[in-house]
Amino acid sequence: MATGNPNLPTLTPINGVKIATVSAGIKTPGRRDIVVFELSENSTVAGVFTKNRFCAAPVTLSKKHLSETTAKYLVVNTGNANAGTGEQGMSDAVATCETVANTFGVEANQVLPFSTGVIGEHLPMERLLSAIPQTKDALIEDGWVDAASGIMTTDSRPKGASVSFDFNGQTITLTGISKGAGMIKPNMATMLGYVATDAAIEQNLLQALLTETATNSFNRITVDSDTSTNDSCILIATGKSGVVIRSAQDELYSVFKQKLQELMILLAQAIIRDGEGATKFVTIQVENAVSQQEALEVAFTVAHSPLVKTALFASDPNWGRILAAVGRADIAEFDLNKLEIYLDDVCIVRDGGRASDYTEEAGQAVMNQEDILIRINMASGSASETVWTSDLSHDYVTINAEYRT
Amino acid sequence: MATGNPNLPTLTPINGVKIATVSAGIKTPGRRDIVVFELSENSTVAGVFTKNRFCAAPVTLSKKHLSETTAKYLVVNTGNANAGTGEQGMSDAVATCETVANTFGVEANQVLPFSTGVIGEHLPMERLLSAIPQTKDALIEDGWVDAASGIMTTDSRPKGASVSFDFNGQTITLTGISKGAGMIKPNMATMLGYVATDAAIEQNLLQALLTETATNSFNRITVDSDTSTNDSCILIATGKSGVVIRSAQDELYSVFKQKLQELMILLAQAIIRDGEGATKFVTIQVENAVSQQEALEVAFTVAHSPLVKTALFASDPNWGRILAAVGRADIAEFDLNKLEIYLDDVCIVRDGGRASDYTEEAGQAVMNQEDILIRINMASGSASETVWTSDLSHDYVTINAEYRT
Repeated sequence: MATGNPNLPTLTPINGVKIATVSAGIKTPGRRDIVVFELSENSTVAGVFTKNRFCAAPVTLSKKHLSETTAKYLVVNTGNANAGTGEQGMSDAVATCETVANTFGVEANQVLPFSTGVIGEHLPMERLLSAIPQTKDALIEDGWVDAASGIMTTDSRPKGASVSFDFNGQTITLTGISKGAGMIKPNMATMLGYVATDAAIEQNLLQALLTETATNSFNRITVDSDTSTNDSCILIATGKSGVVIRSAQDELYSVFKQKLQELMILLAQAIIRDGEGATKFVTIQVENAVSQQEALEVAFTVAHSPLVKTALFASDPNWGRILAAVGRADIAEFDLNKLEIYLDDVCIVRDGGRASDYTEEAGQAVMNQEDILIRINMASGSASETVWTSDLSHDYVTINAEYRT
Repeated sequence: MATGNPNLPTLTPINGVKIATVSAGIKTPGRRDIVVFELSENSTVAGVFTKNRFCAAPVTLSKKHLSETTAKYLVVNTGNANAGTGEQGMSDAVATCETVANTFGVEANQVLPFSTGVIGEHLPMERLLSAIPQTKDALIEDGWVDAASGIMTTDSRPKGASVSFDFNGQTITLTGISKGAGMIKPNMATMLGYVATDAAIEQNLLQALLTETATNSFNRITVDSDTSTNDSCILIATGKSGVVIRSAQDELYSVFKQKLQELMILLAQAIIRDGEGATKFVTIQVENAVSQQEALEVAFTVAHSPLVKTALFASDPNWGRILAAVGRADIAEFDLNKLEIYLDDVCIVRDGGRASDYTEEAGQAVMNQEDILIRINMASGSASETVWTSDLSHDYVTINAEYRT
């Protein structure tokens, strides 16, 4: 199951980025499962990575390489996460980078490795390493659509988006792809995101942009509260448009950040729309909280509640479950009697109980929709946060209970 | 679904406690849905209650009455939780206490009210109040079995246990009942527990005993991480055995506390064994953590992980999911390479990855059992904690998605 538009929009090539998608047959013979990104001279690269302590070998190595020098190549394999693989896992990740480096004539630490797929099995290195040289002749500018498919694991559809905008007569373009259908795909791990722009942005500024926009996108989605060993998101700026974003004080910086944020949210939401067993796309908006932290705590408590999620699956306007989830959120005291909860524009809770003007018909009409907004007015401050989630369906249980059989 | 022995053990009457179970037809005509406990003169009473901010009117009133005087009567109704019912809910709870008080000739604040059932609907006061006088002639000493059924909502079976022990030639008996099949039964709310002993224990000491033993029993179980608006547990000491527990320094205090703890754990585990859709009974034991708090955080993160719970449902020894859940627990840094995870006695994780001597057959053999122990050795301190949970099955989704239809 999945929600929303299943079709990939047009993905505009980014000048300065070439992509090759080839087959190493890592898990499925003939499947195109290796993606290599080549970045033009003077590109800058920023990254954010999983906070799970058991991060996979390629995550550890990507972080190390990013801290040492500027990346020239990214190499991604699907079918095997190279996670929980101990010392050999690290050797395999190093060998992968060395092979990419030898193929293209760069240093090994100019290559960032990424893996996604089964946890706890060693990479089939012979097949993997012998496929890498094929990427050299396969590099194309218009390679984003193939790459979006090339990084999929249990995703039911490729995910990507492009945004272009003009600023003082110059055009800036951003294109990105993402993958993931749960925050963790247990044996089939990972959320991945790759975004590139043709603007020129120095590395520290680029990292700040990525950190901020990832916080408000990939860190605001949840399918099942589990996080993966391999989650990574990379932002590349090639500078090939000639447009330079020099500082956070530039007017262009704000405009660019807004466009990047929109794109990142689209890529993050695409993961929720393709969430495991998802039949609903749910926005949880907490308003007028004392702090961002409290707003997030309330939003995620509601988003993670199995009882709220099964009610959403059933299209059941079960306001008692939402009220109870808010009530157990780990936040300071607040005035229960001022709290309001809405399904879209229908007020379901007011004055500490079911809103007096609420009707089951009005609540049911909202719940019957595929896209649902749960809006919670804490009436205690001025902080707001939004998270996105999916419902908990029979298909979720089926997918995760029967995954290895 | 449910796990373990479905039969209620023998429940020994407690001298000084009489119980009546009658029918008010609150939700189902003819169903015995009102339970009244009568406590003998000089009994002491302690209580612990839900921390959910949206606590129901009867919870608020029980806490108030307990703080004002010693309770002589408890009145419990099933079928309607009187939660999310605003000011009228409080008036209804007060009227219920007044009717019990008038029936038995005590003050209204000597009555503790409890409700469980549908949230957000007003109590059918006419039926409820007219049934209460019938309890006067129905009071019996051997009423625990009827009461265990009388407080059920969606429970598939009544829950109770008794413990007796001798100390210096005197016999002390404890008997308790509990109900609940999820931490919250959204529209059908609540975990309830009522335990009584014939020992004499003054109120402050009794409250300390209840708080400590509830922490290690009812606060260590989770079906789905949701807590209810109505959760309550009451401990009664009638003193009718003539045995007095005077202080925490008494040798008898330690012995009694251990027996009470065992009983409370049985009552709590019975809720997990009857958990919504439960096909597995899972003990999660975290050892050698830096603090109790860290041990609990790790244990509950694993217990709440939908991916771990669906793997348990599938009898899938999916060590990667357990490892990833430990890895995302919100605790301080620890040495991943020293961490060990066991399924019963089978080591599945060691040296930062799958244990080298692990075999799928050995893991599968444990997972095929109905009762499963997940033991996590943090190797970083000396604190241990144990929690109990159930799996996440299709029946859980069915029960919670189709509850109101």
